[in-house]
Amino acid sequence: MHILVTNDDGVQAPGLLALAQEMRKLGKVTVFAPDHNWSASGHVKTMDHPLRAHEVLLADGSTGLTTDGAPSDSVALALLGVVKEKIDLVISGINPHENIGHDVTYSGTVTAAMEAIIGGVPGIAVSLFAPEDFHGTLDYSTAAKVGVRVAARVLAGGLPEGVLLNVNVPYLKENEIKGFMITRQGLRVYRDELDARTDPRGKPYYWIGGEFPIGIQEEGTDYGAIKSGYVSITPMQLDLTALQVMEQMKKWKW
Amino acid sequence: MHILVTNDDGVQAPGLLALAQEMRKLGKVTVFAPDHNWSASGHVKTMDHPLRAHEVLLADGSTGLTTDGAPSDSVALALLGVVKEKIDLVISGINPHENIGHDVTYSGTVTAAMEAIIGGVPGIAVSLFAPEDFHGTLDYSTAAKVGVRVAARVLAGGLPEGVLLNVNVPYLKENEIKGFMITRQGLRVYRDELDARTDPRGKPYYWIGGEFPIGIQEEGTDYGAIKSGYVSITPMQLDLTALQVMEQMKKWKW
Repeated sequence: MHILVTNDDGVQAPGLLALAQEMRKLGKVTVFAPDHNWSASGHVKTMDHPLRAHEVLLADGSTGLTTDGAPSDSVALALLGVVKEKIDLVISGINPHENIGHDVTYSGTVTAAMEAIIGGVPGIAVSLFAPEDFHGTLDYSTAAKVGVRVAARVLAGGLPEGVLLNVNVPYLKENEIKGFMITRQGLRVYRDELDARTDPRGKPYYWIGGEFPIGIQEEGTDYGAIKSGYVSITPMQLDLTALQVMEQMKKWKW
Repeated sequence: MHILVTNDDGVQAPGLLALAQEMRKLGKVTVFAPDHNWSASGHVKTMDHPLRAHEVLLADGSTGLTTDGAPSDSVALALLGVVKEKIDLVISGINPHENIGHDVTYSGTVTAAMEAIIGGVPGIAVSLFAPEDFHGTLDYSTAAKVGVRVAARVLAGGLPEGVLLNVNVPYLKENEIKGFMITRQGLRVYRDELDARTDPRGKPYYWIGGEFPIGIQEEGTDYGAIKSGYVSITPMQLDLTALQVMEQMKKWKW
């Protein structure tokens, strides 16, 4: 099996290395990830300028590929032929923060997995739910092992057509994880605030600031699962149609 | 009523001006759009650097606001307070190409409308389905009038919670439009190809090339509607959960 490992934090991020090293247990691993951080960059297809791709040395002495494009560009370039060998699975991560609720449309980690399924290859996104007040060096070992378990299942049995998996892992030791839960996407509460400042030349500029978003702890959701100590696996699709309102809206006068 | 008009092609794009001018029939219009083209840039929240916002003169002599951020950043900045007056509706467009099928996750036009509903304000994306072989100056007048009709309906009756509208308009005269159709998101067939080149210094670079994507003309879908001469209105949500596979996946051994 040949597995492409990517992320949105950049090719030298420790979460990517932890995932790549663990994935080698399942087959050949090719790392192909952006050369800088693309967090909250969304689903990108770079069409107005060409992209570079070159080899890079990773922190464990192995080599990977990197590009000036976005996470989804890395996947597109790989699947379109920059990586010659057939790819059986794309796995993206490990993101140092959870990707839950509405985050999934912003998330570079998740959009890399979206690009995989557009390219006809199974895609998995793996994110770590570290405590908000955590400071220091994150331990990605549990999340990497979870990634391998999910990837092994997908490599063995495939995924339903057009479905990717969004996996979020609580920050626990492997034996403390309560289990794996299939969840739906929950609700996110953003707490963004405008932070308006003045530059040294007297001109205004703006940070999108405020506190880190919180989730609503609801049973059956991604956030509900990780808050309760379970691995959350949300099967996701790229069909955003709000089917439940279609009949109602057909009656509207346009 | 106070309407925010944005787009992903940049504040000086003719599609935005056509939409802004027509929307003035419904109330006060504030233009706030990126200072350059962000096509296929996805759903962005710029958090790693601050953003600028400043006034700009539009081609009809009116003023608007522009930012170095993405379309979704424009909307976030406006809703967070760079625009002081309460905003009742965000409308994004007019995009010179259709946004159908999987395009919606890449589309800056659509993600601007997503950001609106995350901010609690109704959002509409308007795109023009110009013939693939069209060359010359596009006529946005029909699409702008359609935008006003849809916006008037939304301002009068609201939208179901968490739902945005993705509107695609065929390239026809107003009296040639066959009607308005509530559709589901169809399937897109991408025809991307890798175009590998060598720079003047002998180093490789890559274009994501190939032909423009096509749609699958299926009844009830966005593409089916616009190909048949109807305005397509797809109600969309940010819940990507593939509900139809959840029960099946709960039986899998993880």
